[in-house]
Amino acid sequence: MTKIGTVYGLGLGPGDQELMSVKSDRLLRNAKHVAFFRKAGRKGQARQMVQGLLAENAIEFPMEYPVTTEIPVSDPRYNEILSAFYTEVAAHVRALAESGEDVIVLCEGDPFFYGSFMHLFTRLKDVVPVEVVPAITGMSGSWTATGAPITWGDDVLTVLMGTLDEDKLTRHMQDTDALVVMKIGRNFDKVVRALKASGKFDDAWIVQFATMPNQTVTKLSEMTDKVTPYFSIVIVHGQGRRP
Amino acid sequence: MTKIGTVYGLGLGPGDQELMSVKSDRLLRNAKHVAFFRKAGRKGQARQMVQGLLAENAIEFPMEYPVTTEIPVSDPRYNEILSAFYTEVAAHVRALAESGEDVIVLCEGDPFFYGSFMHLFTRLKDVVPVEVVPAITGMSGSWTATGAPITWGDDVLTVLMGTLDEDKLTRHMQDTDALVVMKIGRNFDKVVRALKASGKFDDAWIVQFATMPNQTVTKLSEMTDKVTPYFSIVIVHGQGRRP
Ligand SMILES: C[S@@+](CC[C@H](N)C(=O)[O-])C[C@H]1O[C@@H](n2cnc3c(N)ncnc32)[C@H](O)[C@@H]1O
Ligand SMILES: C[S@@+](CC[C@H](N)C(=O)[O-])C[C@H]1O[C@@H](n2cnc3c(N)ncnc32)[C@H](O)[C@@H]1O
Repeated sequence: MTKIGTVYGLGLGPGDQELMSVKSDRLLRNAKHVAFFRKAGRKGQARQMVQGLLAENAIEFPMEYPVTTEIPVSDPRYNEILSAFYTEVAAHVRALAESGEDVIVLCEGDPFFYGSFMHLFTRLKDVVPVEVVPAITGMSGSWTATGAPITWGDDVLTVLMGTLDEDKLTRHMQDTDALVVMKIGRNFDKVVRALKASGKFDDAWIVQFATMPNQTVTKLSEMTDKVTPYFSIVIVHGQGRRP
Repeated sequence: MTKIGTVYGLGLGPGDQELMSVKSDRLLRNAKHVAFFRKAGRKGQARQMVQGLLAENAIEFPMEYPVTTEIPVSDPRYNEILSAFYTEVAAHVRALAESGEDVIVLCEGDPFFYGSFMHLFTRLKDVVPVEVVPAITGMSGSWTATGAPITWGDDVLTVLMGTLDEDKLTRHMQDTDALVVMKIGRNFDKVVRALKASGKFDDAWIVQFATMPNQTVTKLSEMTDKVTPYFSIVIVHGQGRRP
């Protein structure tokens, strides 16, 4: 009887390879099968993070999203197409595991924190062994890049996705001390309006590509370039109790 | 002229030494001066996390809290005594750096996320070079331990401290999808009442000593032992969009 392989949801951290955990680093260097999500035609953010670390004979399995932004999230077809895609790639990963192979799935940041790996996880967890390796989140990399603590004392921290509607963004921004907003990109103008409406705009920072060679850290109010930031996070620091 | 040393706020992650970053691991093994906070008479949580990793000739500087729970936080003396303590230990660390030595300050989890290091940081950042190394937070270690993703799609995540008053806890618990509550200990009963009032009690988990050998993961509603959990986090998972 063949031993069944394990599927690893491997957190890579925010980007800097030295910020990967000792465990992820070790598993990566010894990996035979390496799977990762990417947009069609791209190299893939997660794959780029491990450049130079994989063994020469590692077998790569790029999982290319069939849709990402062409169809609006509200369209019922969006969910159907994505769901079929996750089921298909999960079947491939499952077959590898059942043939006795371990499979490493590369995850940006921490796998269980708004990660795409979760869609593989739900489809695999009851059929093959799955192990999740936590990692430094993109937000930890981002607040560290601003050079100031995100939270003090009993500050409330709220994490929001830029995809939420403007009213909900504004309401939650008003009702928190420290704030993190992810998935900025095409939601940039809406996020800025909500920050202004909630009185947090003047204290907001935007960090692009945190901990990577092309990292930028800018006060939102001093942003001059007209290009919408891509891989970026908005940070507003808490101002709680500090002896 | 002596080169000035660097003070490192070194994030250790949630506890498991393999979850430390490659960078923290490297800096630790080569460290000559290692400082850490602890309660008087204790070994110190952060110090215990690095057991076996320090060089034999490493010089340790335990920074023992003068008060922690004897005086209520609301008492003005609390802030004064703590502030004088931070200033005193910061002066020692500064003197070491000015004599040309690097100093590693051990931090549980991520230094800029509700960490005590921040009080050294504010006192040192303008006088000697300070570098902060981010790390996996205790909450990442905790939700990974529950074996389920904390957030999906555009779930809102709120992080609360058990030290907040009950009304504020309840209000924020009601107004979020996913929830993390830290600093449970003596706030346990209050946190449980707030969870019940906000309708989240039945979905809440409590994780003690996440990623450590003595880790426990329990549904709050199924908790039977009468001992108040010590180093623990409450987790309520989001239930957002999942194709
Ligand atoms: C699908 S979420 C994945 C989050 C990831 N699992 C984590 O733990 O950070 C993608 C979002 O993460 C944020 N992000 C992750 N890493 C980042 C980094 N190094 N710099 C800037 N933003 C980052 C961006 O806001 C991006 O839109
Ligand atoms: C002063 S805060 C420090 C947080 C830390 N800087 C971090 O990033 O997780 C201390 C609180 O962190 C939480 N905590 C940190 N690590 C933990 C772990 N491994 N298991 C359970 N709780 C943890 C507990 O709620 C504790 O009361």
